[in-house]
Amino acid sequence: MTDPRHVTEIVAAIRSRQVTAEQVARRCLDAIAELEPTLQAWAHLDEEAVLEQARERDRQQAEDPASVGLLHGVPVGVKDIIDVAGMPTGNGADIPVDGFATTDAVVVARLRAEGAVIVGKTVTTEFALFRPGATTNPHDASRTPGGSSSGSAAAVGAGTIPLAIGTQTAGSIVRPASFCGIVGAKPTVGSVVRDGVTMCSSTLDTIGLLGSDVPGVAAGLSVMASDPESFTPAAVDGLRIGFCRTFEWGEMDRSAQEVVETGVRGLADHLDVVEVDLPMMMRGIVQAQQVIMNVECADELADVREEHEALLSPKLLQVLDAGEAWRWAYGPATDHAALGRALLDQLFAEVDVIIAPAVLGEPPLADSTGDPLLCRMWTLLGTPAIAVPGLTGPSGLPVGVQVIAPPGRDAIALGAAELIADHLGI
Amino acid sequence: MTDPRHVTEIVAAIRSRQVTAEQVARRCLDAIAELEPTLQAWAHLDEEAVLEQARERDRQQAEDPASVGLLHGVPVGVKDIIDVAGMPTGNGADIPVDGFATTDAVVVARLRAEGAVIVGKTVTTEFALFRPGATTNPHDASRTPGGSSSGSAAAVGAGTIPLAIGTQTAGSIVRPASFCGIVGAKPTVGSVVRDGVTMCSSTLDTIGLLGSDVPGVAAGLSVMASDPESFTPAAVDGLRIGFCRTFEWGEMDRSAQEVVETGVRGLADHLDVVEVDLPMMMRGIVQAQQVIMNVECADELADVREEHEALLSPKLLQVLDAGEAWRWAYGPATDHAALGRALLDQLFAEVDVIIAPAVLGEPPLADSTGDPLLCRMWTLLGTPAIAVPGLTGPSGLPVGVQVIAPPGRDAIALGAAELIADHLGI
Repeated sequence: MTDPRHVTEIVAAIRSRQVTAEQVARRCLDAIAELEPTLQAWAHLDEEAVLEQARERDRQQAEDPASVGLLHGVPVGVKDIIDVAGMPTGNGADIPVDGFATTDAVVVARLRAEGAVIVGKTVTTEFALFRPGATTNPHDASRTPGGSSSGSAAAVGAGTIPLAIGTQTAGSIVRPASFCGIVGAKPTVGSVVRDGVTMCSSTLDTIGLLGSDVPGVAAGLSVMASDPESFTPAAVDGLRIGFCRTFEWGEMDRSAQEVVETGVRGLADHLDVVEVDLPMMMRGIVQAQQVIMNVECADELADVREEHEALLSPKLLQVLDAGEAWRWAYGPATDHAALGRALLDQLFAEVDVIIAPAVLGEPPLADSTGDPLLCRMWTLLGTPAIAVPGLTGPSGLPVGVQVIAPPGRDAIALGAAELIADHLGI
Repeated sequence: MTDPRHVTEIVAAIRSRQVTAEQVARRCLDAIAELEPTLQAWAHLDEEAVLEQARERDRQQAEDPASVGLLHGVPVGVKDIIDVAGMPTGNGADIPVDGFATTDAVVVARLRAEGAVIVGKTVTTEFALFRPGATTNPHDASRTPGGSSSGSAAAVGAGTIPLAIGTQTAGSIVRPASFCGIVGAKPTVGSVVRDGVTMCSSTLDTIGLLGSDVPGVAAGLSVMASDPESFTPAAVDGLRIGFCRTFEWGEMDRSAQEVVETGVRGLADHLDVVEVDLPMMMRGIVQAQQVIMNVECADELADVREEHEALLSPKLLQVLDAGEAWRWAYGPATDHAALGRALLDQLFAEVDVIIAPAVLGEPPLADSTGDPLLCRMWTLLGTPAIAVPGLTGPSGLPVGVQVIAPPGRDAIALGAAELIADHLGI
């Protein structure tokens, strides 16, 4: 039987009738049932509904084999800030949910239209910010899976599903992917529409995917995005890779610095890797991101606070208060971001993609979801950022790196990520 | 023999020949010698030079009694970022000091001209920022005395000297005074000239005094400042006091909140106290202060970094890096500060002075100097801010509060501080 972790193999196997969609779904559900007591990746899961969707896929293929979609029978988890018709949208919050969503978010509808089987809602931090959910890291249950796409990363990292939707405002796809040893792709900002998704930060929130491998994530993105071609991994012959430590390098654990440097040296044996520095005028992009994120969160969640303040965590209220306190800096922060974007040409003058650290070290203990520090800049600049696994820290836990390309060049980022994944840490 | 903690009593006692300046100096030196092994408040101390100054005071009085100054024979400690002729200026740094200062800072010269006896240099944090010196809290040697005017606060708090010079950029007078159970006055910004003082932040650094009581501090300030009258405590009949929790109230320890609220309720039994709120548009003044301070520190200490980077602590480098990272927000932060100052009229519309929390709780352990959070706003707004002792936390350690008046109204702040000190916590 085919490896259930790989989207492309699953689709091929079902299409060629080596396996049914129902068998794939059942195997996922069995794996989930076995691991869930420890992993706690799911906020909502209805096994019978999953099997019913899978059987419907099998019926469809039997009736009209030509009609099957690009993700035919692929089980997909959906972060619990994203609407799925017939399921509650809990947002990781303590606020009681009244009723189920009646309509799929656009991204869910698009995945479903191409044959995906929606498995359920994966655990998120509270409103995709910083209060951890119950999910544990699949490699060490005492550690965080990262956040905010915690359940999506853990479910994929544990091998229970091949693909899950996540979102990133600071580092909520790249960080959990890096901590769980999987691929996590935050595409170019604005490339995936957000209807049906609980908003956190209007200019930053970006929907993406977490998956076992780059081709699977690319296939999913090409379905979710309005412009599929942008997500077909580009040919990367002669790829020029820039290793960029970024201004926040000094904040990393020393051991993680060594792991990343060793990994990059290993890459350089096979690929064209040079060191690149950020233009000095890009200093402070991280700080600008924090200001913009805090202020926009305070705006987006103002109504929630007004209605349910007593049910919000101190961690969330801290973000909202910070938004009020930094409001005076919002305009200048957007100006600084614009400057940073204008300087990207300079950064990519000599290289096609950047490889940069993604996390400060191995996943920390589960009372936090770790620090998104190293993701903030790329999120604000709107670039694609793809977490690539392959490196491990001193405790044997995953330490991802990220591959970055200029905004709109997701195809190159994906092609490069696939190439790099083939060479990293081996 | 008179209480050596009170400036006014010391001066009166020496003038009336109940005691000699040499006897006062000797008693201070004895107390210092006894406590210094634990307290470690002094960066430089030359006992013989102190006694020689005191004997000179006595000779002067013998020769011409009318010539004695306002601080005749008063022992004063000087924070070790301030030049004293013939002493090294160490700045609390690991950088070797080559040679002694040849000239007194203006404030030192003014104190000396009015008869003060300069005892020595008190320990400061590194460049008056965050790396603690060796000084311990006089009430509990495991705790911090606060910073950056650590030695000045500890030496006064331990009762070894009646008065010491400090400086404040964020909370470096009010915080250590609050942690050591003494009075600490940061006057209106710009009211005391800074020649001969190592600069940290050009628009914020303010020289002030730490002392055992308000009259002593007021006497010292009237000598140090260019305009003595501004520092003669005003009559405060009918004083209207506003209790202002400020936006950062939620950051305090709950026990400290209770201590402050109980203290203020006690005050209200005797004085006219009402609650006042900050105008909402003053949110973010604390954040603006952080930005301005970091950027200006990075500017002021750029040469030091260039020459001695390897000798600077990680904590200091973090501040300087933050200065570079927040540079984009500097102009807007100064705009926001200007807005905050413009709103002060509104804040003081119904009250003469504000009483506000000064510290987040009792002094923390000595590996940090505590958080200046609650002082940042008043420092940026340029108001006088006077730490007043009298309250104690659950461990029996001091928890100061601060009395604030509009800029230029130091006389009212001092008068109010004296009145409040008489009623607080009793």
